[in-house]
Amino acid sequence: MANVVLLAGGVGGGKFAHGLQARIGERLTVVVNTGDDLERHGLPIWPDHDSVLYNLANKDDRERGWGLRDETWGVSEQLERLGQETWFRLGDRDIATHLIRAELLRAGTRPTEVARRLGVAFGIAARILPMADEPIRTLVRTDAGWLEFQEYFVHRHQADEVREVRFAGAEAAAMSWEVSTAIGSADAILIGPSNPIVSIGPILAVPGIADTIAEARRRGTPVAAVSGIVGGKALRGPADRMLASLGHEPTALGVARIYAPFVDALVIDHADASLAPAIESLGLRVKVTDTIMTDDAARARLAGEVLEFAVAR
Amino acid sequence: MANVVLLAGGVGGGKFAHGLQARIGERLTVVVNTGDDLERHGLPIWPDHDSVLYNLANKDDRERGWGLRDETWGVSEQLERLGQETWFRLGDRDIATHLIRAELLRAGTRPTEVARRLGVAFGIAARILPMADEPIRTLVRTDAGWLEFQEYFVHRHQADEVREVRFAGAEAAAMSWEVSTAIGSADAILIGPSNPIVSIGPILAVPGIADTIAEARRRGTPVAAVSGIVGGKALRGPADRMLASLGHEPTALGVARIYAPFVDALVIDHADASLAPAIESLGLRVKVTDTIMTDDAARARLAGEVLEFAVAR
Repeated sequence: MANVVLLAGGVGGGKFAHGLQARIGERLTVVVNTGDDLERHGLPIWPDHDSVLYNLANKDDRERGWGLRDETWGVSEQLERLGQETWFRLGDRDIATHLIRAELLRAGTRPTEVARRLGVAFGIAARILPMADEPIRTLVRTDAGWLEFQEYFVHRHQADEVREVRFAGAEAAAMSWEVSTAIGSADAILIGPSNPIVSIGPILAVPGIADTIAEARRRGTPVAAVSGIVGGKALRGPADRMLASLGHEPTALGVARIYAPFVDALVIDHADASLAPAIESLGLRVKVTDTIMTDDAARARLAGEVLEFAVAR
Repeated sequence: MANVVLLAGGVGGGKFAHGLQARIGERLTVVVNTGDDLERHGLPIWPDHDSVLYNLANKDDRERGWGLRDETWGVSEQLERLGQETWFRLGDRDIATHLIRAELLRAGTRPTEVARRLGVAFGIAARILPMADEPIRTLVRTDAGWLEFQEYFVHRHQADEVREVRFAGAEAAAMSWEVSTAIGSADAILIGPSNPIVSIGPILAVPGIADTIAEARRRGTPVAAVSGIVGGKALRGPADRMLASLGHEPTALGVARIYAPFVDALVIDHADASLAPAIESLGLRVKVTDTIMTDDAARARLAGEVLEFAVAR
């Protein structure tokens, strides 16, 4: 096994990336969703990138499920005292990341290079690539109108039904040469157990990425996804409700139908074993295993199994 | 007593401003030095403004002598872990101020308006005005060359002898209408116990300010200064050494000679009572009192005495 590219969103993608890094180290490149990025208190926040970064650095907070371990909240508490809106909570250690990023970006550094430097600062082995250097913003249409993603996700606690999704700016963006090279030289391409609509969807919407993956498949590069829907439920977040409200089946089979044009294999949980024949009838190979990553060992085990399965045909 | 304008630098000026506010509340306007301002980690830091702000809000740390009380250091410690230079330490609560300021400035808000909003957020009665909206940077020439002020002051611990001082950008700056109006309508103008060279010097170097003060004096507005040099020593900071290396006498008399063109009265400490005749011979009225502000009561007492003395002639 040589080079692997993983497409990933935030939490689930971060855990799976960490497992892969435990297996293959620097041969892993993670292409992360940037559609959730936002600005808060003038700071550029990259939630999915940072989830992956903190997981790869083994500094993610396992209880809270987001942000850094051993976090403190001095800045946010003071911002609140001073009358600022703080629905998007930022930890003090986390803010250090945002400050470094803000300074680099303001000096004109490309996001791809900013991500590289943050990776160096955190001492991670794998490489994280933003899906594009241009700003792309995921917007969701709800009964309250079009909302920015974090407005829907964090501020309104995913209470709204999502009627439509779009990736503003995607048409003006372009795959970076780093993403192009990584996909082109990958021995396997994986899609993490992330929300297919708003975590993986934006990545595949970047002009060039889906085509480059399709080209790699034609040359024989295996492409496998892991379902983030288990037993009809998202392990975290609103993916199940979002699939349903957008007219998809909120199951691993629904995920399979979305990914069928892009992948040749899907990894699903034991809980969904009965769906395997239906998924196979879509033309996908299926592996059934335990996909819940409860600890480091489970992360690495799942990563190893997915890797083996992806290249097994 | 109606309206008072105080020209002030950081720590000593902040304490004295706090005492004045205890006496006259919202009738106090503090014009602060901005020559020490700098950018760290992409954040605009206004050390003298914030010292005055935190003192006026009664949130200044009395033991450390700078910054906010009950401060934590999560961001700075993490920045250091990530390989950033952190010789200019920023507390977490303090960073909230810088974030709010950065966002306002980046949106095009004038520094004078930014200061007003920060004053509102901290709930202070007095008003703080930056000496100018344009950037002015105090530079000091040392045997190591020209240094930015905080490089000399914080990073190099004031170890260098100061051979020359200049205020880069002053010639291109202009007194704001707020400063002009405040001075023009003041019933007394005071100069706090700040460093005459690098705290008060920059304020008087802003085109228009010294002239407007002179005009107010011609109309009869009293102008009084408090010596920050007591017994030949600065209470804090390098003012004594700086006066000496720039050819001034490092005493209250040296301070009197610098301020003589601008003021008609000087307040000095009991320790310097013997200098009173020499100062009076410069044409200044002199008041001798206890100028050390050890607690809130001392701040308010000194402020009251200086006010009374200033308008007493």
